[in-house]
Amino acid sequence: MRVLILGGDGYLGWPTAMRFSARGHDVSVVDNFSRRRWVEGQGSDSLTPILSLEDRIHAWKEVSGQGVASYQGSIEDAEFLEQVMIETRPEAIVHYGEQPSAPYSMGSREQAVETQQANVIGTLNLLFFMRDHAPDAHLVKLGTMGEYGTPNIDIEEGFIEIEHKGRKDTLPFPKLPGSLYHLSKVHDSHNIHFACRIWGLRATDLNQGVVYGIETDETIQDERLCTRFDYDEVFGTVLNRFCVQAVIGHPLTIYGKGGQTRGFLNIRDTLQCVELAVENPADRGEFRVFNQFTEQFSVSELAELVREAGAHLDYEVHVDHLENPRIEMEEHYYNATHTKLLDLGLKPTMLGEELVESMLKAIERNRERINESVIDPRTQWKPEGAPLQAG
Amino acid sequence: MRVLILGGDGYLGWPTAMRFSARGHDVSVVDNFSRRRWVEGQGSDSLTPILSLEDRIHAWKEVSGQGVASYQGSIEDAEFLEQVMIETRPEAIVHYGEQPSAPYSMGSREQAVETQQANVIGTLNLLFFMRDHAPDAHLVKLGTMGEYGTPNIDIEEGFIEIEHKGRKDTLPFPKLPGSLYHLSKVHDSHNIHFACRIWGLRATDLNQGVVYGIETDETIQDERLCTRFDYDEVFGTVLNRFCVQAVIGHPLTIYGKGGQTRGFLNIRDTLQCVELAVENPADRGEFRVFNQFTEQFSVSELAELVREAGAHLDYEVHVDHLENPRIEMEEHYYNATHTKLLDLGLKPTMLGEELVESMLKAIERNRERINESVIDPRTQWKPEGAPLQAG
Repeated sequence: MRVLILGGDGYLGWPTAMRFSARGHDVSVVDNFSRRRWVEGQGSDSLTPILSLEDRIHAWKEVSGQGVASYQGSIEDAEFLEQVMIETRPEAIVHYGEQPSAPYSMGSREQAVETQQANVIGTLNLLFFMRDHAPDAHLVKLGTMGEYGTPNIDIEEGFIEIEHKGRKDTLPFPKLPGSLYHLSKVHDSHNIHFACRIWGLRATDLNQGVVYGIETDETIQDERLCTRFDYDEVFGTVLNRFCVQAVIGHPLTIYGKGGQTRGFLNIRDTLQCVELAVENPADRGEFRVFNQFTEQFSVSELAELVREAGAHLDYEVHVDHLENPRIEMEEHYYNATHTKLLDLGLKPTMLGEELVESMLKAIERNRERINESVIDPRTQWKPEGAPLQAG
Repeated sequence: MRVLILGGDGYLGWPTAMRFSARGHDVSVVDNFSRRRWVEGQGSDSLTPILSLEDRIHAWKEVSGQGVASYQGSIEDAEFLEQVMIETRPEAIVHYGEQPSAPYSMGSREQAVETQQANVIGTLNLLFFMRDHAPDAHLVKLGTMGEYGTPNIDIEEGFIEIEHKGRKDTLPFPKLPGSLYHLSKVHDSHNIHFACRIWGLRATDLNQGVVYGIETDETIQDERLCTRFDYDEVFGTVLNRFCVQAVIGHPLTIYGKGGQTRGFLNIRDTLQCVELAVENPADRGEFRVFNQFTEQFSVSELAELVREAGAHLDYEVHVDHLENPRIEMEEHYYNATHTKLLDLGLKPTMLGEELVESMLKAIERNRERINESVIDPRTQWKPEGAPLQAG
């Protein structure tokens, strides 16, 4: 199958490209290397020493014998994207090509605008070029569980049957996202749903939980194939960050009470889920939503797990409850349905002490690359400078 | 009160500016004159011969003795908008400053991107500058009833209490908008709601029905004060279009069966509603939604009303059921709650034959300005050129 991967140089995009290539698919990747620039702009860098995309592709060819085509450019650039769509004639498009950080989107007006523009306009371009050049292709779009927020009812997979004043309808699940980044994904979901309804496109929105982990079956074949791993306050995800903090003896940075509960999954399961979605495409005109995570944890539970796993490796792990830089509920109901990917055959990789220990060991190998100054939170959801109280 | 009106040169913006000015408020208007350019780009022009903003403001000063400040620029231009916010220090912001046409947004990729960029990024800029320079100001934002689409349950005012698996929450009403323009307003609503939740801003989202009418208490005081009136397929609204069609003997352009039912209101009631919202501001942190219309009609009912009113003036009005250029349900359930503005004191101007007759007479006075070639629909929701069926 011809598979086009947008954001194919990223944390998830690069392992996904190798996975589809390893399975014998004809893989093309698009990236504008924004992620590398954004992380550098925070004064940080990937914990793992990653090669350039060109060198990665070269190494993958050596290791696997498989070629991967690459296109350097931005999906916001319509002329570029249209050319890619015409040249690659994709049957499946896996779309990771977005600004993926909530704190980045909250850092300034400029960053908020950059986020919503890159994500919403980039995806809108894509929908038009699918309509015009690849109307039968299946869009597999990475959304986020953060689109839902933390409602006081069970979260369903994209849609909910509502009974109201004696009548019924199944409607998009209401969204209460927690950052301008999460909002950009909500906007995307609405636009994609529309394109399916009006133009008959087919799409799967993968509302992904928080990803952790460092290795996949392909990255471990050669050290040149490793994927990026961010641990700074802006681009790192919580469990990855906690593991880095444990290794260097930095107290784990719990924001507020730590009762914040979210869905989580291993990077290996991200690849499984994306594969399952591609292998089982949506119908023409269908907009499917899968909640893509395997387990729910509170932030405090994760911290405790890292503390225990660290103890086995003789790390003395402390925990710090920092003033929460975000505006979010710190204790709340959370129960999200996530059966559709299991029904397609997902075999979850469960999180446990053993897995955390393996992450700690992998991080230890790159310990000298850790910059402690990028760990503590700086991005405030409600900046102090702003005159926030009624005059 | 210091009132800032974004889009103050438009169909609704200009009458709103005069209304607040007539009430003694300190009014500033912002416009980039996109609407004038867009309509000209369609080969059309306002039926009414409108003056430049500068000349209108001059005429209004002569008629009323009141001054109105004006700023020419786009709210997408952050530097410009920030300066306006600092100079005008608004207490209320009435935001009409968006691309307002569904067909325009569906005309091409470029127009879709222009629409979502102008509307979403412009409004996002505004929210940041409110946070930084006018955190106590009340945002009165023009949304649209089209954000809801046509669900099979009653439409509530912005929020709905959902009981699900034994638990309850009140959540944003799910949205199924029918064009990329309507989607831009859905995105705005989510962004504004977030700004209220996180930054404590106050906002009222006026989900307005389809507006009709040509005159307000201020426009009729002097012919130089008239507002624009569009009747082309892209920027005209349905009843206004039907009245123009009746006057020149063009068959009324019903799209498909004509069972499409929507909420409608008179332009005079738009002004009443906006005034009521401004006079009764939302609380700090509150995001209110009012459904702003007075009556529901199907398109066929409107056509019949125009036919009957036309007969009294000796117009012989025919009706044409054209192939529907939009993708929409042509027969559906529709029942939308709209009590909040009535509770604040709205006195609806009901639509009847007398009112339609007065519109027909006003149009007759500008009959020689009508360009019949812009009336028939050209914008297809699903363009024929596009390869829309599975390959």
